[in-house]
Amino acid sequence: MNYKMIGRILSVILGVEAILMLPALFISVFDGDAPVIGSFLLSIGLIAVVSVILFFVSRNAEMHFYAREGFVCVGLSWIAMSLLGCLPFWFSGQIPKFIDALFEMVSGFTTTGASIVPNVESLSRGILYWRSFSHWIGGMGVLVFVLAIVPLNGRNSGFTLHLMRAESPGPSVGKLSPKLSQTAKILYIIYIALTVADVLFLLAGKMPLFDALCAAFGTAGTGGFGIKADSMTSYSPYLQNVTTIFMFLFGVNFTIFYLILMKKFKAVAVDEELRAYFGVFIVSTIIITSNIMRLYPTVSQAISHASFQVASIMTTTGYATADFNTWPVMSKTILLCLMIPGASAGSTGGGMKWSRIILLIKSGGRGLKKLLYPRHVDAVRFNGNVVDEKIVDNTNAYLAVYIIILISSFLIITIDGFSIETNISAVISCFNNIGPGLDGVGPALNYAHYSGLSKGVMIFCMLAGRLEIFPILVLFARKTWTVRR
Amino acid sequence: MNYKMIGRILSVILGVEAILMLPALFISVFDGDAPVIGSFLLSIGLIAVVSVILFFVSRNAEMHFYAREGFVCVGLSWIAMSLLGCLPFWFSGQIPKFIDALFEMVSGFTTTGASIVPNVESLSRGILYWRSFSHWIGGMGVLVFVLAIVPLNGRNSGFTLHLMRAESPGPSVGKLSPKLSQTAKILYIIYIALTVADVLFLLAGKMPLFDALCAAFGTAGTGGFGIKADSMTSYSPYLQNVTTIFMFLFGVNFTIFYLILMKKFKAVAVDEELRAYFGVFIVSTIIITSNIMRLYPTVSQAISHASFQVASIMTTTGYATADFNTWPVMSKTILLCLMIPGASAGSTGGGMKWSRIILLIKSGGRGLKKLLYPRHVDAVRFNGNVVDEKIVDNTNAYLAVYIIILISSFLIITIDGFSIETNISAVISCFNNIGPGLDGVGPALNYAHYSGLSKGVMIFCMLAGRLEIFPILVLFARKTWTVRR
Repeated sequence: MNYKMIGRILSVILGVEAILMLPALFISVFDGDAPVIGSFLLSIGLIAVVSVILFFVSRNAEMHFYAREGFVCVGLSWIAMSLLGCLPFWFSGQIPKFIDALFEMVSGFTTTGASIVPNVESLSRGILYWRSFSHWIGGMGVLVFVLAIVPLNGRNSGFTLHLMRAESPGPSVGKLSPKLSQTAKILYIIYIALTVADVLFLLAGKMPLFDALCAAFGTAGTGGFGIKADSMTSYSPYLQNVTTIFMFLFGVNFTIFYLILMKKFKAVAVDEELRAYFGVFIVSTIIITSNIMRLYPTVSQAISHASFQVASIMTTTGYATADFNTWPVMSKTILLCLMIPGASAGSTGGGMKWSRIILLIKSGGRGLKKLLYPRHVDAVRFNGNVVDEKIVDNTNAYLAVYIIILISSFLIITIDGFSIETNISAVISCFNNIGPGLDGVGPALNYAHYSGLSKGVMIFCMLAGRLEIFPILVLFARKTWTVRR
Repeated sequence: MNYKMIGRILSVILGVEAILMLPALFISVFDGDAPVIGSFLLSIGLIAVVSVILFFVSRNAEMHFYAREGFVCVGLSWIAMSLLGCLPFWFSGQIPKFIDALFEMVSGFTTTGASIVPNVESLSRGILYWRSFSHWIGGMGVLVFVLAIVPLNGRNSGFTLHLMRAESPGPSVGKLSPKLSQTAKILYIIYIALTVADVLFLLAGKMPLFDALCAAFGTAGTGGFGIKADSMTSYSPYLQNVTTIFMFLFGVNFTIFYLILMKKFKAVAVDEELRAYFGVFIVSTIIITSNIMRLYPTVSQAISHASFQVASIMTTTGYATADFNTWPVMSKTILLCLMIPGASAGSTGGGMKWSRIILLIKSGGRGLKKLLYPRHVDAVRFNGNVVDEKIVDNTNAYLAVYIIILISSFLIITIDGFSIETNISAVISCFNNIGPGLDGVGPALNYAHYSGLSKGVMIFCMLAGRLEIFPILVLFARKTWTVRR
């Protein structure tokens, strides 16, 4: 294990985190909010100190890097960022317990949006900003960001690939450009452009600038932290519909936007994941609309609420314009099921990703064929290309591990004695980085009432979900720390 | 597709079914229950006619047989047996609706034990006997039975293997003897011996003969149809504990009993599936006992109820000595989770089987290793032997298809508007051939209130669960009927 190299990268990551905390500090200064200013200054100082220490310790790191280091590095970076990033919440006293502050921070970076804050409107603006901004940072991945902008000498493409593979969502990493750091740059430019567009549309609907920024960060990262107790319920239908559209867009594989920019419309039109994602969005919206129609005065309101909630759950954002906990059981069931596949690979959304679901269905179908025609062995194809058997294997292994973690977590948190519906939806919601669940963790409620142990389990689930399991799991494997290469 | 061959086998299967119906007829005759006698006579006559017609149609069948035919044959046999086997329920008027009669019969043959009968004590004894006996027939598999006893000329080992593979539970078929029909015979002898032992132990506890037979059939097949409205609640603790032990035994891979008979104790002691099955049984019983202790006057009563319910759910039997729906949420959650892995491969129990779970965990672990050390590729090992990659692939494909069917079924039956807990546990319970679920389908309730559509979905789930998906799925694949080999 190349510890120095990992220390080097952690140093850069934490330095970036300290810088990213500055806007929240400025907002507190603008508001003249003394205790919050102090907590941000102290946190930034601490993070900077840790970063500098790591920098000196890892001064003469060799830039050799293998897959294992890539996973460990990503796992540790996210944990370190969360542990230090939650300090302002705790120091300011706005979230009095450390485990709660950590839960909130992990929920922010992993773009889950599950909250333990009983009344979000009591938080000060600096804290609210950092909370929402963490979604934006975590959405695209901070390591990808670092790769895009920070020059690390001796960096080679293997190194970059290992990190991107470990941090980026989906079964495989698409290269948009022969140079991966170039790919990271393109992705970030698309990300920023879409976020700016979202802000402008929200401002056009007379949303205040601060609200618009926070809402756009939550939308772009598909996170879902709101700055109002009722999430998006009290905003105008225009603002809600704008958010529906942008949530949907941020759940699309960013490669699609790149293809559109390159005018490769045909490739977009035949993309299997986009078709599945779009098709399921439309069908679910139609079914839920017809199911909830009688609850709303007009059909267009029912469509608006149905499409908002479907987009919010599918993209794993977690904003709400309605308490779907009170909807009929069929609508609730559809939303619960949509939590698991989630959004597209290469988007900021969480969940298993539609491309994985498609691969699983195809590999299941092939399994059936193999049984029937043992001598006809086909490759699995995706968008017309043969999928590497390693990726198929990996996807199947992913599903197995996914279910094992899901069930273990579900079993542990039952200790707190809440209902089965609450527990199962809490675990699914955290693991898939959605935010709200059903029953006791429905959109009108929060996670504060769970015990410290359960919150710890859910922190694990959120991180494992965002980083697609392996970078977190590898930290717990004895071999990672004992076997020499 | 070798239709004649399939017709030939169907003819034999239905002939056997008609014969197996005779004891129920004799009981009705003994009871002088005229309408039931009539319904059995009519049913037996009809089945015999169909069998004879099939025999003449398929007179000169060629004994060529491929994997595909094996699956189709097993799938069709079970459907034909259910369609014709449910006739006595319907003709006698004891179950007035055909869909309900079919549900009850499929539930019987698949050893599910989910019932639509509101008051089971109102059924006549002939009907009760046939209902319970169907568990015993379905437990070991009727095709395996036929292979063991009926000489079909021109039979070759490929033919036998295809049928056994398609009907036997678990990821692979173990050969106990070089000749597969010999293996089938050994399995049936163990099955009969254990059943007889169960009956004797029950009789020793002063259970009436009829009750003992029905209880033993339900236990041996891990089915769970009772002849009392309260399942096993009103029987003495001795009878309940005997049933706990026998339920546990019938959930063990029968190969283990063969190894014991051969005095290969070492192989038994290191068997990974047996260890997992036994370990989970003990741990679950301990946790649930401590969780429900305060509900019962003595600890031994709590242990007795906990172990009974754990054995009943793990082996997918579905008998109950207590309404676990009223137990604390942790106990309910554990029971819900135990429904999915179920019992052991090569037992009469349902579910995914522990050997599959072990394979999934190992293949998941290997997936992780592959990511970290791309050049170290290990084979998956089970009980020290390398597992054929085909079986690993197939197990992964199985999981994918399993989940897809589970979620689709869950979505469809929400149309009826019952609670999420009811629906999810109903689907899991039917698919894993357990019987009772939670909430609206808890052990004190039944499935009668579901719509015809939902019952149809659950019939599909029960068959797919018992036959491990592929033999049923293949009937719906267009290719099965169109592609020539």
